[in-house]
Amino acid sequence: MKPRERKIAEGFLYTDEYQLTMAQLYYRVGLHDRLGQFDHFFRSYPDYGLHKAGYCIAAGLEWLLNWMQNTQCRDEDIEYLKSQVNRTGSRVFADDFLEWLRKNGNFDSISLQAIPEGRVVHPNVPLTVVQGPLAIAQILETSLLNHLNYQTLIATKAARIKESGRGKVMLEFGLRRGQDRGANAGTRAALIGGADYSSNVGLSHVLGYQPKGTHAHSMVQLFMALGEGELEAFRAYADVYPDDCLLLVDTINTLESGIPNAITVFEELQRKGHQPVGVRLDSGDLAYLSIQTARMLDQAGFPDTLIVLSNNLDELVIWQILTQIQEEAPRYGVDADHLINRLVYGVGTRLIVSDGDPALGGVYKLVAVCDANTWVPALKISESSNKTPNPGHKHVWRVYDQRGKATADLLALEDEQPGSEEQIILHHPFQASKYRVLHTNAVTEIEPLLEDILQEGNLVAELPPIEGLRRRRDLDVERLDPGVRRLMNPHIYHVSLSAKLWKMKQELISSALSPIRNRVAP
Amino acid sequence: MKPRERKIAEGFLYTDEYQLTMAQLYYRVGLHDRLGQFDHFFRSYPDYGLHKAGYCIAAGLEWLLNWMQNTQCRDEDIEYLKSQVNRTGSRVFADDFLEWLRKNGNFDSISLQAIPEGRVVHPNVPLTVVQGPLAIAQILETSLLNHLNYQTLIATKAARIKESGRGKVMLEFGLRRGQDRGANAGTRAALIGGADYSSNVGLSHVLGYQPKGTHAHSMVQLFMALGEGELEAFRAYADVYPDDCLLLVDTINTLESGIPNAITVFEELQRKGHQPVGVRLDSGDLAYLSIQTARMLDQAGFPDTLIVLSNNLDELVIWQILTQIQEEAPRYGVDADHLINRLVYGVGTRLIVSDGDPALGGVYKLVAVCDANTWVPALKISESSNKTPNPGHKHVWRVYDQRGKATADLLALEDEQPGSEEQIILHHPFQASKYRVLHTNAVTEIEPLLEDILQEGNLVAELPPIEGLRRRRDLDVERLDPGVRRLMNPHIYHVSLSAKLWKMKQELISSALSPIRNRVAP
Repeated sequence: MKPRERKIAEGFLYTDEYQLTMAQLYYRVGLHDRLGQFDHFFRSYPDYGLHKAGYCIAAGLEWLLNWMQNTQCRDEDIEYLKSQVNRTGSRVFADDFLEWLRKNGNFDSISLQAIPEGRVVHPNVPLTVVQGPLAIAQILETSLLNHLNYQTLIATKAARIKESGRGKVMLEFGLRRGQDRGANAGTRAALIGGADYSSNVGLSHVLGYQPKGTHAHSMVQLFMALGEGELEAFRAYADVYPDDCLLLVDTINTLESGIPNAITVFEELQRKGHQPVGVRLDSGDLAYLSIQTARMLDQAGFPDTLIVLSNNLDELVIWQILTQIQEEAPRYGVDADHLINRLVYGVGTRLIVSDGDPALGGVYKLVAVCDANTWVPALKISESSNKTPNPGHKHVWRVYDQRGKATADLLALEDEQPGSEEQIILHHPFQASKYRVLHTNAVTEIEPLLEDILQEGNLVAELPPIEGLRRRRDLDVERLDPGVRRLMNPHIYHVSLSAKLWKMKQELISSALSPIRNRVAP
Repeated sequence: MKPRERKIAEGFLYTDEYQLTMAQLYYRVGLHDRLGQFDHFFRSYPDYGLHKAGYCIAAGLEWLLNWMQNTQCRDEDIEYLKSQVNRTGSRVFADDFLEWLRKNGNFDSISLQAIPEGRVVHPNVPLTVVQGPLAIAQILETSLLNHLNYQTLIATKAARIKESGRGKVMLEFGLRRGQDRGANAGTRAALIGGADYSSNVGLSHVLGYQPKGTHAHSMVQLFMALGEGELEAFRAYADVYPDDCLLLVDTINTLESGIPNAITVFEELQRKGHQPVGVRLDSGDLAYLSIQTARMLDQAGFPDTLIVLSNNLDELVIWQILTQIQEEAPRYGVDADHLINRLVYGVGTRLIVSDGDPALGGVYKLVAVCDANTWVPALKISESSNKTPNPGHKHVWRVYDQRGKATADLLALEDEQPGSEEQIILHHPFQASKYRVLHTNAVTEIEPLLEDILQEGNLVAELPPIEGLRRRRDLDVERLDPGVRRLMNPHIYHVSLSAKLWKMKQELISSALSPIRNRVAP
């Protein structure tokens, strides 16, 4: 795409056509300025096939806000919309609507609450609550989902991979396999969710992290093609980067060539007073090779150089590698724990695309409309009851038990104050007969999760840097039950409705269905 | 990301750190200006789990070229690189290298050949061949893969979905589920590979297509919340869009409410002289519902209004829907073929993320280096033989059989002219004993696939609009054996080496391994 085209395709028209046709319809019937509320939420955790996530990490909000604050309908956008014609050749958008859009086509009228980035989040809980004139809030839908779905997906995957690697350093390597510029959003989300560093130079710079990397096979190949060998390539690298010498050892053969050559170069470096950093293994049986590598490095007097693993890693592969190391390392006289402590994980493709479940199904649903200064709840009924959104303006509370662990997220109506009575009723979101009663004395904290972010377009929240988001993540993950953190078959965390919200939802469903039940042919 | 940050993160630093450290190393040893050749190719078709693709559609080149032509190392980039320090606190990049990079950090020195966008392509065939100074060609790797991997992946998925829908109209709806800005690249690739239109407004505008869409559930919900109903919502829509009236019918209940209300409105429209367009089904059993919808519309006198299907469609889901329609429709007195002819497919998530296999493993490998005006082949050996790239500068030929169908892609050395002798030997790329002999008289055409695109930075090819790419796609798909086009278990298309290339590769592998075989402890 050319830079001029980018302005068109990433600006106000970064939306779906039906948002604009609906906005014009609202304008035509006089509802465009009516305040509406839309909830953004996802319906289920990413399900990677063998294994399903037990929690997600919210991410993407700051970039959404950047987009909203830097985007408005430009004259060129209006000119284009003017030129749109339908199949009979008449214009799709009329002048009066476009004139309104030219003046009002920005997000200064939007108020927004959100569960902040970095926090643990769960299905069916509003992560973002948008209030604004219906026409504008409608146009915002596509971009909001685009910004929030993907980063939340990747922050979640990164948290799982970090967990599988027992908290050791994890590097994000996915730029070449992400979706065009979307890869930058993936890098950011990975850094929020669990990656310590990234190879992505530009984005690391933007976020204030040192980008990480070593060398590729091509460097070794080059020396070979010119009549030298792997050893000369390693020596050249050590000469230029004596204090950052991390060598990729699998261009020819890891154990027969790469490691012996690396050890030779490490010894030379050491004699010159430099500390070698380590080696990277990028193919083959990474568990077996890392044991043999550790054995050879130990014997050569390099017991602490790092062993970086890469090549299609994800949380299950890492888990399997560590299990195999713990079983096999002792047989080769290698201390498994010591080896595991020197591992670093380079994770590319499977992180940046969330392999196994590459899209988070976040949705944006109208839940209330303002009518004569009152918020009227709005409903969409679905044939499967778990797809009927929770109507109305709601508060979201996280309830902590006596251990200080989060035990449920509770959706309640605005005028409710959970914890003010002796017991809290946690109603199952879809099943009428299922509820759980918590005595208030078994509860240590009830925390509201939604924070005010925008008030009529003005930023009213502080947006901390990535380090702050990571602290939130660590705090929240620490307060999850270990069963919820489990990589396979996690406990299902409870997301519940207050008894009052449950009742209101059932009444709305009944009243929406009554015209069908009483249908008389028109 | 803020606009200022975007310039950093999407410009010259849109690369991996190791590309820059390698470039500096090449500079330090005097190899930075040496010409190298890198091949870009993928090793296997997307494998969606149950089913593997039998061919891919190349896409992404034009946007890569746009990026290359609009990107150069800026002073700010240099300042940032100057500030990078390693773990001992010393600078990573030295002044002399950065001074060179400031002057040479652009892609004016790159020559590039490619198999053009829209064409059918296969594994292990160079899709893109880059020649240029080693340091610059190395820095280009990440962005090249980022631009080409994803669009080729999505064009391929779109071609399959189009095929499953028997060529009927297919709409791309994925903007909300793509990776941030990457979704625009997905829309473009979908339009190249098989989608007829997209809901993405900005990108459709850029590419010259009318964006498509109807309305969302929220419009119906809004009317309901304000005390009216689905019928009033449909009427409002028909009033504003009398000639584009396509109604979403599942907000309450498809068959009990949505379709009857749509028919009422269609009758009103018809009385006013307008032709209703159709309905959209977005939940439930789409095969069953489309049969019942067709039956009801037929009975009401609307036998030709469209039935748009959406909701997690992909090639297998569409295939299953059509199979079920052909079995069940007659039982309800509905003509299956007539129904299938009025279907339109709205495909979102599963297309934009290539569900089932969300990344194409395209790689970029050094295959030759220029030494004293001669191209010396370069090799990377892998423990699995199918990951050892084909070395040297190669030509790519597509061989057509007597039916005019493509029967193999042949990689040959530059000085070879396949077809000039009586027989063509097609050697299996990895297995020594496997080859196939084609007599030249059984061959109707031998077509060179790589075209010159850039010569030292200058564009020397014409880049046709999407329509032109679609014509290439149709031509190529038409010339595939039907077995290769099959959605499940396709025939494996032959990608072969010439006997001469095979021999050269084996000799190189032997010579690279000889130092190991003769190893003496250093």
